[in-house]
Amino acid sequence: MTDANYIYYSDLVGTMFFAISGAMAANRKNIDMFGATFLGFVTAIGGGSLRDIFLNLRPVWVNDGNYLVAILIGVSIALLANERLDKYARTLSLFDAIGIGFFTIVGVQKSLIYDSSTIAAVVFGMFTAVLGGVIRDTLMNETPLIFRKEIYATACLAGAITFILLRNTGLNNSWCAFIGAAVVFVVRIVSIKYRLFLPAVGEYKKR
Amino acid sequence: MTDANYIYYSDLVGTMFFAISGAMAANRKNIDMFGATFLGFVTAIGGGSLRDIFLNLRPVWVNDGNYLVAILIGVSIALLANERLDKYARTLSLFDAIGIGFFTIVGVQKSLIYDSSTIAAVVFGMFTAVLGGVIRDTLMNETPLIFRKEIYATACLAGAITFILLRNTGLNNSWCAFIGAAVVFVVRIVSIKYRLFLPAVGEYKKR
Amino acid sequence: MTDANYIYYSDLVGTMFFAISGAMAANRKNIDMFGATFLGFVTAIGGGSLRDIFLNLRPVWVNDGNYLVAILIGVSIALLANERLDKYARTLSLFDAIGIGFFTIVGVQKSLIYDSSTIAAVVFGMFTAVLGGVIRDTLMNETPLIFRKEIYATACLAGAITFILLRNTGLNNSWCAFIGAAVVFVVRIVSIKYRLFLPAVGEYKKR
Repeated sequence: MTDANYIYYSDLVGTMFFAISGAMAANRKNIDMFGATFLGFVTAIGGGSLRDIFLNLRPVWVNDGNYLVAILIGVSIALLANERLDKYARTLSLFDAIGIGFFTIVGVQKSLIYDSSTIAAVVFGMFTAVLGGVIRDTLMNETPLIFRKEIYATACLAGAITFILLRNTGLNNSWCAFIGAAVVFVVRIVSIKYRLFLPAVGEYKKR
Repeated sequence: MTDANYIYYSDLVGTMFFAISGAMAANRKNIDMFGATFLGFVTAIGGGSLRDIFLNLRPVWVNDGNYLVAILIGVSIALLANERLDKYARTLSLFDAIGIGFFTIVGVQKSLIYDSSTIAAVVFGMFTAVLGGVIRDTLMNETPLIFRKEIYATACLAGAITFILLRNTGLNNSWCAFIGAAVVFVVRIVSIKYRLFLPAVGEYKKR
Repeated sequence: MTDANYIYYSDLVGTMFFAISGAMAANRKNIDMFGATFLGFVTAIGGGSLRDIFLNLRPVWVNDGNYLVAILIGVSIALLANERLDKYARTLSLFDAIGIGFFTIVGVQKSLIYDSSTIAAVVFGMFTAVLGGVIRDTLMNETPLIFRKEIYATACLAGAITFILLRNTGLNNSWCAFIGAAVVFVVRIVSIKYRLFLPAVGEYKKR
């Protein structure tokens, strides 16, 4: 399997995992099967699609039906194995940490290829990994998780910045990508294990 | 009137109807006249605009001012005839069912013309019909109706799939379109009449 | 400094101010520092980005890193000077009224340059000034302020229409722009001073 193939299939698998987590979120509210499918779809394609729209590109899933098939498989897994998946929450958060590492670096690279500024590429790397979840939470009428819980988007920013800095040293691109994704993974897992949080802003004022 | 003319004016009329329903939704909350106009606008152009943005096209209403005029007429009708319209809820839901049938097929056709995959075209057909309402509900800080009530987006998916399957049989395009839209209409009306729902996912857990 | 330079730096300063107000909004909820930064970013670039996306253009901040630097400065000011800024709410609302006047006219002009219809240009002028705040409020799970409070978006519409009408008289473009922005400012400040509101639609029905 060539490198390009490898990235393509990783992208499909990552999309499927995001669809699983999106559809599982529907459990939290009284949402029907269509809603669960829609939320799985939005979680899976939201981040990458917004990045592509900002770059004035057509998102890949519009032309390549395989992404939508991956999403349907992910949603089906979530609907069928719903309660079992809840038991594997810990394992899932490991996969999630791998997933956001992968998507962050994919997002940075695509942005740089299409001539975004370096700082925008860092933002887009993070967007690719987290914005699908933000849209999902917003549609479900909740304050997005990433604004109020744990170090998540910040881990993506750390990995994206690492990747950019390493690239400037002239290190081989694959190594930069691998180390950048690893930084996302490690920061995320360490922050879960030691319950690290970012400080909240101001006082909490009940409205 | 030519076919193209017919579709163009249907599109304007449909846009006006969606603006009416969007502005009427403002009734549910303490929203001012600007808010009602904005919600009418978003409901009317949201679905088609998102489809066009995903296809990397400029939405039609940006260049053709007639769509915004149609929306202003729709919003004015809603604001002036507000309470009377409430009495005609049943008639309005008939028009709505016709409208979503029409917009679904328009959405599928435009997506195929601009080279989306077949499965994405089905998604975009449904998007064209329902996403304006999803954005409206989200802006009003409510869980979108289509996630929790009745068979609505699912009717659009059924019609879109029917249209695609018929096209593959080589049937005349106008007939495919008409039958596809009719499927949306019938599924929608039957589900209202017999109070059919999709099953909810998981247990409802009050948060 | 040339005219173009002047507009460019005004744009950066305006972006910074919007980032301040966006990050300050995080104070209202239990949001962490990343969330505050994200909300500052969204408030600052949301309106102009949506306008550009509707026009099928790439938003300026994607290629020009200075906008993101301006946002980071704005967010830092908001986080460091948080409580002091609260004391200057009145001064800030003056700057805000200048800012929305400026952004409205910039939005109308850019839309006309890129061939939108006149009526769409009015809408985009208002969008440029207010949509960032709408997205911020929606992400924070609140009904957008502009739907329920004060004359804000309406002031932008008034200024945008004034600008378009003056242009048609053949008046020098800089004067049209200045008068249009002044109309936004005056309508906004007068409505604050005399507590003017738009009428709400229908009866408020608690759901």
